Amino acid sequence: MSEFDFNEHSHRRHNPLTNSWVLCSPHRTKRPWQGQQEAADNETLPSYDSSCYLCPGNKRARGDTNPEYQNTFIFTNDFAAVKFDQPQFQHNSNDKFSSLLKAEGVRGECKVMCFSPKHNITVAEMSKDAIIHVIQAWIEVYRNYFSIPHINYVQIFENKGTIMGCSNPHPHCQIWCTESIPEEPTKELISMTKYYEQNKSCLLCDYVLLETLKLQDKPRVICENDSFVCVTPFWATWPYETMIIAKSHVTSLIELDGEKQLNDLADIIRRITCRYDNVFKCSFPYSMGIHQAPVDEKDHSHDSHLHLHFYPALLRSSTVKKFLVGYEMLAEPQRDLTPEQAAETLRKCSEIHYKQENM
Amino acid sequence: MSEFDFNEHSHRRHNPLTNSWVLCSPHRTKRPWQGQQEAADNETLPSYDSSCYLCPGNKRARGDTNPEYQNTFIFTNDFAAVKFDQPQFQHNSNDKFSSLLKAEGVRGECKVMCFSPKHNITVAEMSKDAIIHVIQAWIEVYRNYFSIPHINYVQIFENKGTIMGCSNPHPHCQIWCTESIPEEPTKELISMTKYYEQNKSCLLCDYVLLETLKLQDKPRVICENDSFVCVTPFWATWPYETMIIAKSHVTSLIELDGEKQLNDLADIIRRITCRYDNVFKCSFPYSMGIHQAPVDEKDHSHDSHLHLHFYPALLRSSTVKKFLVGYEMLAEPQRDLTPEQAAETLRKCSEIHYKQENM
Ligand SMILES: O=P(O)(O)O[C@H]1O[C@H](CO)[C@@H](O)[C@H](O)[C@H]1O
Ligand SMILES: O=P(O)(O)O[C@H]1O[C@H](CO)[C@@H](O)[C@H](O)[C@H]1O
Repeated sequence: MSEFDFNEHSHRRHNPLTNSWVLCSPHRTKRPWQGQQEAADNETLPSYDSSCYLCPGNKRARGDTNPEYQNTFIFTNDFAAVKFDQPQFQHNSNDKFSSLLKAEGVRGECKVMCFSPKHNITVAEMSKDAIIHVIQAWIEVYRNYFSIPHINYVQIFENKGTIMGCSNPHPHCQIWCTESIPEEPTKELISMTKYYEQNKSCLLCDYVLLETLKLQDKPRVICENDSFVCVTPFWATWPYETMIIAKSHVTSLIELDGEKQLNDLADIIRRITCRYDNVFKCSFPYSMGIHQAPVDEKDHSHDSHLHLHFYPALLRSSTVKKFLVGYEMLAEPQRDLTPEQAAETLRKCSEIHYKQENM
Repeated sequence: MSEFDFNEHSHRRHNPLTNSWVLCSPHRTKRPWQGQQEAADNETLPSYDSSCYLCPGNKRARGDTNPEYQNTFIFTNDFAAVKFDQPQFQHNSNDKFSSLLKAEGVRGECKVMCFSPKHNITVAEMSKDAIIHVIQAWIEVYRNYFSIPHINYVQIFENKGTIMGCSNPHPHCQIWCTESIPEEPTKELISMTKYYEQNKSCLLCDYVLLETLKLQDKPRVICENDSFVCVTPFWATWPYETMIIAKSHVTSLIELDGEKQLNDLADIIRRITCRYDNVFKCSFPYSMGIHQAPVDEKDHSHDSHLHLHFYPALLRSSTVKKFLVGYEMLAEPQRDLTPEQAAETLRKCSEIHYKQENM
């Protein structure tokens, strides 16, 4: 029989950050698709929408009025998933049955942050300078939580597109801050700690080294600059999943070293989001999030390394998404093309947004 | 301040089967929904569709013709995610960099199983006797894999409804069999083993005891019979997630003790799927799967306990699903109503299917 070929044969890959596996079936894209088609997000929107609760000057659900903001604007979510204002949780007893009904109270705060006063723009079409404003606002909000009691973790994330459950196209992200350190960051903290103990080096520093310097042809690198690299991780689950990773060992946004790194982060965010939109010439739906050091009082110099995850939903076209359903929920995530194939597609995409091409 | 109330205050609950947490924000259902609406699966379908590759007598993608089957029918997936026929995978070296690019080959087989020759029926509307045929076919296929080399795990699952990525409404499930034991069952095996070592009893036996006997009012029990119980687990992620659990310690389908348990399993599957359809008077989309002992050569008497998971997608109505997106992907699954509230809704639903009510 022929040799084992990652582009032909089924295999699973290990995610060292979460210590889990993903099944990769590269030949599966040949399967015809007769299932659900999504509506492509190609609607033309006005730059101001009087019924949008995020546009400048408009009223929100609870009656507050948004200021006439120029760049970014932050407020507390009117329907927050976590709040400060709740009683303390009483732990239950400790027999074997109570270990089956284990719970804990979660205090916290949910913020919404508008990226721009313009209703009809997305990060992919924003200028680098406008993205710098967003990053500066992220830094400020993140820094602030170090001094707020009961908050130990700050999760910044963006749901983009209706198929990602986003209910308002106005460009914005959310910031959910909790007393608990959530599941995914916890897994990463554990893996990074183990890796550091074994190798006396940072898992993501080593991974960046591997992808940008040790491997010829850089099969998973999409784009890079002096401070950041964007790759389809070897263990990616979503078809076009990528990670932006800091090249130097910074544990969080506040460790970014001045203008240059700020500029480089904005640059790479702009470039990857623009490439996404160009893959299928549509506004590419995704969830994006930042992983960085918790804001608790511990030392995170060895278990955290600033990175952003992009989990985009589409598989074949602007209307056919990847469903992570039966097998994925019950057994193991399964992907239909290799991360290297995805990287190649993304590398071929222009960094000029398709809507701006003929301008 | 008032007392902590699971129905009012945010908390997280621990899933002892997968050793992970889920954030529960009970007040969040009050949030208005302006996001994506799904098309409800209310189409009227014919009982035979000449273009369906699962209907009796029809041709499939690769040219095979389906027999004129009467109850169930099994064949190998024409676009299988795993196959027997591939070269052996060569492991790579063992330095720290290769630990970041860890992979393994996965051989296996993917089967499709039709539940009924009728194109326009779902499990929720099938008779108990018809469901018994399905279970018997599951038992046979599962038993068979014990003697097939390179297969260690058999995952039976059903994607129901277009929003669960199901591309054909003809009632069917899939059976993916692999050399590797996938991620989710592995987590459960580990947790069950740990629990057994600590308590000298089975985690799910104890959980059944707790939910059906030790707790007054049985807040999470939806329905039960002599051999099975259906509950919204304390740690459920999906709004209407349920588990069917065997009351006695059977590790797999082949340990079901004759007619009675077979009958009881069909009974409870019929009852819960029927209740699902009645919640929003629509064909309720879900992914369902069976967890049981691996088909490898090890002893699973203490780490496996037959159960079925139902992961239904809807949250508010037949057209508004729950999105597990940004926060859920990046941080932690989050739910908007408590499992106890979901159980109450499901308990109130009839076990006569809404379409059959006036017959
Ligand atoms: O094999 P199907 O039903 O065409 O495909 C469906 O189920 C698979 C297993 O859960 C998923 O990987 C696919 O994304 C989904 O569309
Ligand atoms: O808060 P939003 O944007 O209305 O809600 C969206 O994001 C949340 C966080 O990922 C999810 O829990 C919701 O299901 C989704 O619809």
